[in-house]
Amino acid sequence: MSQYRPPLSDIAFLLRQVFPLDEHARRCGFDFDADTALAIAEEAGKFAADVIDPLNRASDVQGARWNNSEVTTTLGFKEAYKAFCEGGWNGLRFPEQYGGQGLCAVMATVADEMWHAASFSFALCPMLTNGAVEALLTAGSQHLKDTYLSKLVTGEWTGTMNLTEPAAGSDLAAVQAKAVPQQDGSYRVSGQKIFITFGEHDFTENIIHLVLARTPDAPKGVKGISLFVVPKFLVNADGSLGARNDVRCASLEHKLGIHGSPTAVMLYGEKEGAVGYLVGEENRGLEYMFIMMNEARFSVGLQGLSISERAYQHALAYALERVQGRAVGEDGSGNLGNTILRHPDVRRMMLGMKSRNEAMRALAVYVAMQKDMAHSESLDAEVRRNAQSRMELLIPVLKGWFTETAQDITYDAVQVFGGMGFIEETGAAQYYRDARITTIYEGTTAIQANDLVGRKTVRDRGAAAYALIDAIGNDARALRELDHADARALGERLEQACGALRGTVAWLLERQESAAREVYAGSVPYLLLWGNVCGGWMHALRLRAALQAGGEGAASVAASVAPTAVSARFYAEQVLPDAAASASAIQRGGASVLDYPDSAW
Amino acid sequence: MSQYRPPLSDIAFLLRQVFPLDEHARRCGFDFDADTALAIAEEAGKFAADVIDPLNRASDVQGARWNNSEVTTTLGFKEAYKAFCEGGWNGLRFPEQYGGQGLCAVMATVADEMWHAASFSFALCPMLTNGAVEALLTAGSQHLKDTYLSKLVTGEWTGTMNLTEPAAGSDLAAVQAKAVPQQDGSYRVSGQKIFITFGEHDFTENIIHLVLARTPDAPKGVKGISLFVVPKFLVNADGSLGARNDVRCASLEHKLGIHGSPTAVMLYGEKEGAVGYLVGEENRGLEYMFIMMNEARFSVGLQGLSISERAYQHALAYALERVQGRAVGEDGSGNLGNTILRHPDVRRMMLGMKSRNEAMRALAVYVAMQKDMAHSESLDAEVRRNAQSRMELLIPVLKGWFTETAQDITYDAVQVFGGMGFIEETGAAQYYRDARITTIYEGTTAIQANDLVGRKTVRDRGAAAYALIDAIGNDARALRELDHADARALGERLEQACGALRGTVAWLLERQESAAREVYAGSVPYLLLWGNVCGGWMHALRLRAALQAGGEGAASVAASVAPTAVSARFYAEQVLPDAAASASAIQRGGASVLDYPDSAW
Repeated sequence: MSQYRPPLSDIAFLLRQVFPLDEHARRCGFDFDADTALAIAEEAGKFAADVIDPLNRASDVQGARWNNSEVTTTLGFKEAYKAFCEGGWNGLRFPEQYGGQGLCAVMATVADEMWHAASFSFALCPMLTNGAVEALLTAGSQHLKDTYLSKLVTGEWTGTMNLTEPAAGSDLAAVQAKAVPQQDGSYRVSGQKIFITFGEHDFTENIIHLVLARTPDAPKGVKGISLFVVPKFLVNADGSLGARNDVRCASLEHKLGIHGSPTAVMLYGEKEGAVGYLVGEENRGLEYMFIMMNEARFSVGLQGLSISERAYQHALAYALERVQGRAVGEDGSGNLGNTILRHPDVRRMMLGMKSRNEAMRALAVYVAMQKDMAHSESLDAEVRRNAQSRMELLIPVLKGWFTETAQDITYDAVQVFGGMGFIEETGAAQYYRDARITTIYEGTTAIQANDLVGRKTVRDRGAAAYALIDAIGNDARALRELDHADARALGERLEQACGALRGTVAWLLERQESAAREVYAGSVPYLLLWGNVCGGWMHALRLRAALQAGGEGAASVAASVAPTAVSARFYAEQVLPDAAASASAIQRGGASVLDYPDSAW
Repeated sequence: MSQYRPPLSDIAFLLRQVFPLDEHARRCGFDFDADTALAIAEEAGKFAADVIDPLNRASDVQGARWNNSEVTTTLGFKEAYKAFCEGGWNGLRFPEQYGGQGLCAVMATVADEMWHAASFSFALCPMLTNGAVEALLTAGSQHLKDTYLSKLVTGEWTGTMNLTEPAAGSDLAAVQAKAVPQQDGSYRVSGQKIFITFGEHDFTENIIHLVLARTPDAPKGVKGISLFVVPKFLVNADGSLGARNDVRCASLEHKLGIHGSPTAVMLYGEKEGAVGYLVGEENRGLEYMFIMMNEARFSVGLQGLSISERAYQHALAYALERVQGRAVGEDGSGNLGNTILRHPDVRRMMLGMKSRNEAMRALAVYVAMQKDMAHSESLDAEVRRNAQSRMELLIPVLKGWFTETAQDITYDAVQVFGGMGFIEETGAAQYYRDARITTIYEGTTAIQANDLVGRKTVRDRGAAAYALIDAIGNDARALRELDHADARALGERLEQACGALRGTVAWLLERQESAAREVYAGSVPYLLLWGNVCGGWMHALRLRAALQAGGEGAASVAASVAPTAVSARFYAEQVLPDAAASASAIQRGGASVLDYPDSAW
């Protein structure tokens, strides 16, 4: 296996030049600067590379195992988790009052990319705990906060999210789990939940489940769902562990990937009913869950970047070392032939991965900054509102586009290895398999696309969408006017792609009432079109920053800017042209999807 | 698991209306007609669905196992193989004089699609035997033919192809295996071969290896490679089995997919050297291998269609049954919601699979007909030459485009299942994993693309390429003039796509000498552009045939033509628009690929 190299120089470029963190921190009123951020990133990178990454392959071969309702995780995971918590990494983003580090979303994003790159399976545990913490911070009573938050923030206990049931996947309206109120104010929860990530494990003594269920008189559908805290062990008034609750792990799934992450079938209330505590108010569970889901969707999007980066690095190590044949138009330098990175097609794949990874990483930081701004009390209400609205627009794009892109990138990474790529010991296949879940969980790409069309584009009559397209268009025009060939090329293509996107938004707004099914038939391509354009935008901002930072001497500028400029040009020439084709397919293609005769399937 | 349904009605449509087999048989001088062909296809379909398909899932869970150089295959495989041979399926395409059925390439193609759809892993064994038979028919001495052909054709023995070595993957010039001539005219072969499909198994008593190796004084590179027959057991003069040869299976690979197919590391000559017999002349091994490889590449392309069809059917069964949520713009018909096939995005995925499968199946039959014509002695030399040249042009397209398309289709099939798709028991993940090998073995997509650029486009200065583009353009224009909206729409888009392809061929011919590396950086997208256009062409021929066959009443025509017409329109509106983007990426994108600074990786 290759050694994971944390992408620190790209992170430094982003936080110093493209989106200066010092400025961001000042604006948001954080007592934080880029030097500190990069020092923390370096430490996180070390932990990811030295402690987590070496366990990842083993976690695939010897995944989590179930025995009599107990789960044993991969050898070494438990110790790594302990070290992770001791290093304070678990609570990076959470308030200091609960034992967290109180760092901004940008910092959490930078660190999270590295945890997921080192091991998806491992990093899912803290990721789910984050969701539980968010839910309690958002809607938990003071008593719930006092009882659970510190333990979750420090990682002494972990959290889970229990949404899915056999008949309720994408459609949460179909949730059937029950919660019956008791005299003491608690509830008795019963029902089966499936696909519960780290629903059972051996990392910690207690596990805090957040569970969607219905109270007896709840309205039908999504408006009758409530959210409950159901701990594996009840917690005594002094914080010590009490009785075992009536919840257990009935089995683990056999999955295509992320074998190290136990995906549990959970049974609640087989006996007297599991003791649960209402979070917030009855029937508002889905609303709270959506707050968590925004976080979780951002995190899964980030996983798409993480595994793409890791797979890229793995393939690059091989491409730099494997000699095979003489590359066309190259000197064979003796009999050995060339490394495969000299072969034009391998080079195309490698640069394709790199260029898209750079675009994704920049967009992740940009969205994280919007998140920070939306929550910063130093900023005007309007600035915050705009940041919130931009973040909300971009989260389904980030989730959907990053994870779909990760499929292509992990696919190409296997391809670079040729026949060796198909052999499990090579490791490339694991990234390919692991990546496959990311376009499914936390809402499939279609669910993201529905959100993007319905709640994020149509609801405000395109206001947020057009505002962002205007901003991108301005940056594209500015780039086009620079005295630099690659900048001009990117600026032109980006403007064209913006035009295609703008036209598609207009078409969608016009048709969504009269021909909703046609519009939704193009929703996934619409999401990917947004991703395509945003990626081009990120390259525009990267290239502008690189040119500004270039300094004096023309030759040295050219050399230092070249990697950024060539990667941007690749994106302009090989990725952005898809925008027009995609806009055409969306606007013309819906009818055939709907017209296909039912009897002909 | 879903039940495999052989695509008999589509096959009948192709062989009766799109490419009438009766006419084809007359032209080629075959004593054969469509009725017979469809009766055989029905029988093959039954065998595939009833005998092979039910073993496929088990072959994934309990793949081939190695023990002390022996290999045990999946329970039931051996018996199914015996029945397969007894049914005469193994020798379908081979001369009657060796016990074959002497059927045409079209018929073999139709049957092969079904074997591979039912189980990739199983069908690989006869596929490799076919390669060995081809090699012996092409270049074997009469003695070799007499000794081995009947047993291989009937399937009493199986064959393998031994090309790859650890240092010789895509680059066969690096082959190091040795063959030392002996006084009796035989050779002693030694060396290690890897990735040998069905290199060892328990189906048959003997296994006939075809091995690339170098004689002591052979020239370096590809011009010094010879081809040898190396049987597992030597064969006595009376045809009975003699001594065990010095060849053994050292291990099996742990692979991402096709677990039921033993992929062997083979050791030749650990002791005194394995006895081998030269096929044809010394140093012409690669030439013979290329003849086999054309066959093998066609077969692997077909596997792309097969697994796409099987994965499509599996997803369709679920999409027709799974109820989840209310589809936008649809009546929920009570509380249960709609089947997911009513959801526009699922429908888009399903039709996307179906439309591309139909295009691929038609192209497979078309190329098989070219193969028949190239070999038919009833035809003029020029007609045969043209058919040969068209077949040779299209084989890398078929191999590359079918298998890359299979990645998308098996991906979408997993996606249709949502969370269940990631669970191995669902079966969709197996198709996804199995499919992954097809863009790698028998030459990666890049190798196909090199062949398409170098040998198939540049060598004749674009003659074969332009001739085909002209033919497609004519069919597109003819379609545009029909009084049918979908036909016009497809005709227009297809003409545009032809234009993009024609421009790309011209660009390529112009640049290939002065900027070879730039041209080859676009070789894979060039191959896929060909596939895209050929797929549109096939839809054009399908739609024309459907309209011609429609009969009288306008309403009944519309109803019977609708599935073909809507599928064609989908392709026109959602797939063909990529051609322009792709042409632009090829013609503009090469420079950035090459310019990326070496120090920046």
